[in-house]
Amino acid sequence: MQTDPDKRPEFDDLVAALELGGEALAPFLQEVHAADLANWAPDLSEEQLGAALNGLDTEGRSELLKFAEDAVREEVLALLTIDQIVEVVQEMPADEVVDLLALTDDDRSERVLRSVDFERAQGLRKLARYDEETAGGLMTVDFLSVTDDVHVGDVIKDLRSEEGPAADEGGVFVVDPEGKPIGHVSDRDLLMTPIHTPIRDVMESGLITVGVNDDQEDVAQLVRKYSFAAVPVVDFSGALIGVISAEDAQEVLQEEAEEDILRLVGTSPEVQQTRLPVLTRVRHRLPLQALTVLGGLATARLLGTALPGAEDATVGTDVLRYLPIIIGLAGNVGIQASTILVRAFATGEVAPDRQRSVLASEVLVGFIISLICGAVTMAIATVSESQLPDPLHFGASVGVAIVVAVTWAAFLGSVVPMLCQRWGIDPAIVAGPFLVTLSDVSGAAIFVGVTTLSLGVGV
Amino acid sequence: MQTDPDKRPEFDDLVAALELGGEALAPFLQEVHAADLANWAPDLSEEQLGAALNGLDTEGRSELLKFAEDAVREEVLALLTIDQIVEVVQEMPADEVVDLLALTDDDRSERVLRSVDFERAQGLRKLARYDEETAGGLMTVDFLSVTDDVHVGDVIKDLRSEEGPAADEGGVFVVDPEGKPIGHVSDRDLLMTPIHTPIRDVMESGLITVGVNDDQEDVAQLVRKYSFAAVPVVDFSGALIGVISAEDAQEVLQEEAEEDILRLVGTSPEVQQTRLPVLTRVRHRLPLQALTVLGGLATARLLGTALPGAEDATVGTDVLRYLPIIIGLAGNVGIQASTILVRAFATGEVAPDRQRSVLASEVLVGFIISLICGAVTMAIATVSESQLPDPLHFGASVGVAIVVAVTWAAFLGSVVPMLCQRWGIDPAIVAGPFLVTLSDVSGAAIFVGVTTLSLGVGV
Repeated sequence: MQTDPDKRPEFDDLVAALELGGEALAPFLQEVHAADLANWAPDLSEEQLGAALNGLDTEGRSELLKFAEDAVREEVLALLTIDQIVEVVQEMPADEVVDLLALTDDDRSERVLRSVDFERAQGLRKLARYDEETAGGLMTVDFLSVTDDVHVGDVIKDLRSEEGPAADEGGVFVVDPEGKPIGHVSDRDLLMTPIHTPIRDVMESGLITVGVNDDQEDVAQLVRKYSFAAVPVVDFSGALIGVISAEDAQEVLQEEAEEDILRLVGTSPEVQQTRLPVLTRVRHRLPLQALTVLGGLATARLLGTALPGAEDATVGTDVLRYLPIIIGLAGNVGIQASTILVRAFATGEVAPDRQRSVLASEVLVGFIISLICGAVTMAIATVSESQLPDPLHFGASVGVAIVVAVTWAAFLGSVVPMLCQRWGIDPAIVAGPFLVTLSDVSGAAIFVGVTTLSLGVGV
Repeated sequence: MQTDPDKRPEFDDLVAALELGGEALAPFLQEVHAADLANWAPDLSEEQLGAALNGLDTEGRSELLKFAEDAVREEVLALLTIDQIVEVVQEMPADEVVDLLALTDDDRSERVLRSVDFERAQGLRKLARYDEETAGGLMTVDFLSVTDDVHVGDVIKDLRSEEGPAADEGGVFVVDPEGKPIGHVSDRDLLMTPIHTPIRDVMESGLITVGVNDDQEDVAQLVRKYSFAAVPVVDFSGALIGVISAEDAQEVLQEEAEEDILRLVGTSPEVQQTRLPVLTRVRHRLPLQALTVLGGLATARLLGTALPGAEDATVGTDVLRYLPIIIGLAGNVGIQASTILVRAFATGEVAPDRQRSVLASEVLVGFIISLICGAVTMAIATVSESQLPDPLHFGASVGVAIVVAVTWAAFLGSVVPMLCQRWGIDPAIVAGPFLVTLSDVSGAAIFVGVTTLSLGVGV
């Protein structure tokens, strides 16, 4: 993307610099953007990450923590000493510090708090008490507020004299004598207005405020709806106690959209799904499959007892009653894989060099799920179809069909979006409807194939 | 949300003010936030909207257009005179003007361009030539750039003397003598730094730039990854020609996420789905259903010819081969309704007072889809199951089962998220897996019920 993209360092350059170590490392790390470092961190060994942290200064560590996912943050915190964490914490806005300390154990976090400035520690403890999902959990308390009798020049002077990290770019709030927010001035307005102008002549009034216990999603929706640069958070008395920036609000909405997508396809709403361990992914997705198996078994039962002509059924048509389970499971696993990949492409989580390993791990996830669901279905079918001449053989056929069809669906669900991506087709268009149909038909074909091979002779 | 929420005007207040008209209207409209007005606009009659526009001044109209959806913008543009549009256009940044003029016909847009300042018109024409989906289509050209030999005070002076709308809050880019961007200074840094400081001592260097023809999604991903406040857009020679703000980039990502969700469930990626006419919604969702019907018919055929024991099938078990179509269609329609609602709640598109009408329209959409798919399936089943004693009766039973099951699924898909919302449960968790299973089992039950009633006697 840069004018000269060849010059931007890549992961391999980091690994090379880490191997050289010593003098080569620090200047290299100076060059690298913290966001890139945070992106590469999951693929580093603990030793490599430790070496990289040693090569960074406090600001570099604080930047890395700012951009990193929680899993990386935990690792970094474990590798830093208490003193190093204290240094890092001085560089960060209070709300980020609270989020960070929540990732380390109580003992270490307590030791950090005891080492920072008393007043700040008190503020941090207070902030940590707000529910993470509320305005209080999202707001920063590092902001400047002024009364409406000052002039623009006074505000600029105040800004310059403020110590520590102030809320970036969010402008300044104007409060009345009781501390209630009555107006807002953007940084640009402060720049554009002669310094002798009274602040009340520049400020935008008619503020919309949010309560400290309001749900963070409602707040984020509000910020988006009205395009606020920052929204004031008030306590029960209406006094200004925090500020939520547009950036933080947008982040909430973005996360919420990602989480909704993942929940809708029945997996955990954690970000970076493709980086989770295979067994964690299996565990997250099993509840939906359990529901599908239960629903499918109920359907099979219903069809067996209620359908006209059921009493004349052959083994072949008995097997048909288990088709909904197979189609359902294959559909779930396929749509989960494809949805996760579509979004992983959109967010840049899966770069081209990770595609092969992601494909392998998704197929493995599907295979393990299919083994579990196949075994359960086989057991129940064997017991409940006792009217058949060889119920175990019957159950085993259904089980094997599930394993083959579901693993195949996981493969399709991963490969189709990858091919779309490579061929320049929007994967979301193809991954949804087309994939579901493909998975249904091929699931049925596999089912027919397996049961014909297994039960066909002698029926 | 406001400290005193009772004071904030609502839709009914707008309608009342519009009825009073004249003197009461203008002060009321002064009070209302343009975002609220934009949100209410789709529910106003053309006459009411015209009256509201007459009550607004140019700034108010420009703000309304900024916040409104494209459908509302089109309506507003049709109601304004060319002169009024020209006035409005003077208030807006160039990129928004281009997007706006794209919504009106070429003739009117040409007349507007001929009435604005020549240089600006030239800039607008140039901007309009970039593909909407590229960095060029997203960037604004109203920005300030300075060379690196000036001081902070000079930059502030330049900012104050700039005429017309400058890019808000995005800071200032520093360019070399060839116009290539070499650094960036935020508004806050300008405020915090003594005015005699050379700009090169304040600026952040090591910029990442994007090309004017780069895909807007790649650009937005970049802005998000590195948390840029603004990103410089360069032409083929590397010279700075535009700026993309973090807000615009975030908007792209947000839209992309919404579109992916809608595409994955097989409907059109248009925003505000619940506000589209019923027949438009049916048309958007039919392709997926057609795929499902085709896939289901292929499956029915496959099961009929290949399954062991197929030659001994009864009418009851023959009917079973059509179950995948029904489960598939009901699943699609249900998941489409629930997904659209889950997101509509999350974005505030469906407020409580619209729930009933949205429910009714979603069920109607499902019913129309079920009629079409039911009729097609009935026709094909009647022809292809000619070995049966009464193929028409058979086909009709399958068709009726489709209509009942799919309409029911549309009802479930709308009602379940609404109840979740009311009971404070996250609708996304329940709407996905739970709903699919519920829809599968109840689809099968409806299928059994209908076919038993219809075919049960005399089989």
